[in-house]
Amino acid sequence: MTPTRIQKVKKLLDKKIDAILISSTPNIIYLTGFEGFSDHEREAYLLLTKTKNYIFTDARYCETVKKIQTFKLIEISSNKKFSDGLRETVVKEKIEKLAIDEDDIKVSEILKIKKVVKICSDENLIEDLRKIKESFEIENIKTACKLGDQTFKYILSEIKTGITEKQLAKKIEIFILKKNAGISFRPIVAFGTNSSSPHHVACDRKLKKNEIVLLDFGVKLNNYCSDMTRTVFFGKASIEQKRIYKTVLEAQTKAIEFINRQLNTKLKASEIDKVAREYIISQGYPTIPHSLGHGIGLEVHEKPSLSPKSENELKTGMVFSIEPGIYLPEFGGVRIEDLVLMTDKGPQIITRANREIIEL
Amino acid sequence: MTPTRIQKVKKLLDKKIDAILISSTPNIIYLTGFEGFSDHEREAYLLLTKTKNYIFTDARYCETVKKIQTFKLIEISSNKKFSDGLRETVVKEKIEKLAIDEDDIKVSEILKIKKVVKICSDENLIEDLRKIKESFEIENIKTACKLGDQTFKYILSEIKTGITEKQLAKKIEIFILKKNAGISFRPIVAFGTNSSSPHHVACDRKLKKNEIVLLDFGVKLNNYCSDMTRTVFFGKASIEQKRIYKTVLEAQTKAIEFINRQLNTKLKASEIDKVAREYIISQGYPTIPHSLGHGIGLEVHEKPSLSPKSENELKTGMVFSIEPGIYLPEFGGVRIEDLVLMTDKGPQIITRANREIIEL
Repeated sequence: MTPTRIQKVKKLLDKKIDAILISSTPNIIYLTGFEGFSDHEREAYLLLTKTKNYIFTDARYCETVKKIQTFKLIEISSNKKFSDGLRETVVKEKIEKLAIDEDDIKVSEILKIKKVVKICSDENLIEDLRKIKESFEIENIKTACKLGDQTFKYILSEIKTGITEKQLAKKIEIFILKKNAGISFRPIVAFGTNSSSPHHVACDRKLKKNEIVLLDFGVKLNNYCSDMTRTVFFGKASIEQKRIYKTVLEAQTKAIEFINRQLNTKLKASEIDKVAREYIISQGYPTIPHSLGHGIGLEVHEKPSLSPKSENELKTGMVFSIEPGIYLPEFGGVRIEDLVLMTDKGPQIITRANREIIEL
Repeated sequence: MTPTRIQKVKKLLDKKIDAILISSTPNIIYLTGFEGFSDHEREAYLLLTKTKNYIFTDARYCETVKKIQTFKLIEISSNKKFSDGLRETVVKEKIEKLAIDEDDIKVSEILKIKKVVKICSDENLIEDLRKIKESFEIENIKTACKLGDQTFKYILSEIKTGITEKQLAKKIEIFILKKNAGISFRPIVAFGTNSSSPHHVACDRKLKKNEIVLLDFGVKLNNYCSDMTRTVFFGKASIEQKRIYKTVLEAQTKAIEFINRQLNTKLKASEIDKVAREYIISQGYPTIPHSLGHGIGLEVHEKPSLSPKSENELKTGMVFSIEPGIYLPEFGGVRIEDLVLMTDKGPQIITRANREIIEL
């Protein structure tokens, strides 16, 4: 896989860009397959010129990185800092204009890089490549979704009076870990009125009868993420709760139907957002306080964005969430989130868990 | 706790700095106590002026953030971007020079902020405050270390012929999760020759008799991290393995003794690194391919750094690791890592797991 991707990157190098410096961990995984670098600290950079590929890292990783044959290793240390190694390479490869991951490089780093070479924006070249998934990537995401569906089925059996949000979140995490996968983000578990906060942080609140249970979680498997949200009722849902649920589900259905109808035209992500958003408002509820959806892959949130101001178009091979929600302070919230794969034949929902009202 | 910390930050605002923009998630936790924001994506900023405190976040978090009384909420959305909110506040509060978290802010962000206000470096003001721990922080780190010690004791009983590195790493993670804590980083588990890579990524290698087992893991509890490394022998250690182990242990002991001896003088972190490093070299082994140690707290790696070029001094209230190692390609590696709390009476080792040679 990797050489092809590298070739795609090289095609983007032209008169305006001599080389590209890649720093974000997901982008490094995308181009090398190596997943060992920290997500939180800078441990490596890739430098792709028109003809060469370099990887800069320190002694902790050198033994492993030597095995990545498509990249030449430049070891950095306290005696040979990254900026020193970069300077040597810039001279050797006659790099005059360097593009950078500007959504990833920190201000303190750029101050050093600027002293070595002239910077130009990368305009998120790699993130743009990552939007369209290859078939093995789609398979990985589907496998993660399948485990997500299993997790949901399992967790329903653990929803009991008195359990806390934190305990339920922990059970989700342990179930996924035991299946030899990881979580793609800290699970959101919200009971009752807490569900009116779209990104509630699980706390020690205990579940009572007749409360809403909002569950938003994802699996990470072979570096690829899944993401899903279900809102279930612990006890019988009230008439108003049912009405909210049906409105959210209908908003999601309308968005998917819209994609189907517009299949052979330019599919603007912002218009799909609009369909769901306007339906919810038309039913007398407040607008969705977040985007309708987001792309997913090596990261849980990536391009395309399905939001009112998105400039993305939806194309075959993209995988993204559709997750409308209604949130009423002091009352509670409902969100339903599924992942959709765009195919030539239309949108394919790849999270399969039951979407109908569940009363436990 | 928090108001005092905020007061400390305000004391740092002077003629050169009108306000400070705080973006890193650990810094936000440090000043607000709120741990809900993503570690991977920008979801909030704090702005501290000489008299006011603002928090910028979006609708997903507004309900929760309203409860943080020391901060005034400014809601951001697709219609009112962060730069819009910042511009309004800069005008209202007459901010002319804004300091930023330059180790955290991304290039793409700074381009927008620069259009609104003049930037000056924050010189890591908050990270400097975080170096000296308050007593409740020390208690949290000690509790995390205690759970780390328990995890080590447990994991020894799981080391068996045929288990893979990944399986053992997973067992560490599940044990910690079941104790209602989290991991502070992905556990490093390395068998045999894999242990010669200081940051080996656990793979499917199965354990064989007479192999080295290197375990490096940490607990995160109440937002505070622990970190420890032990290297044990599955079977009887060879004479050379024992010699390496004793050399590493002696290097660690010498570093701690040095701190004790120099207690009432200026304790340069670089000199402690030197003591351990030179001892290892004097025994005929290669230099440590990483720093001798690092501070720890809300993040697993923070200030001070114990490295050859560190300019930090060690002071009462600091907590840091001391982790010498010897790594021989094709042979294997040994690292021993403990956390040390600096007190008026000397260094106190707060990881208590057995440091003597263990042969299983």
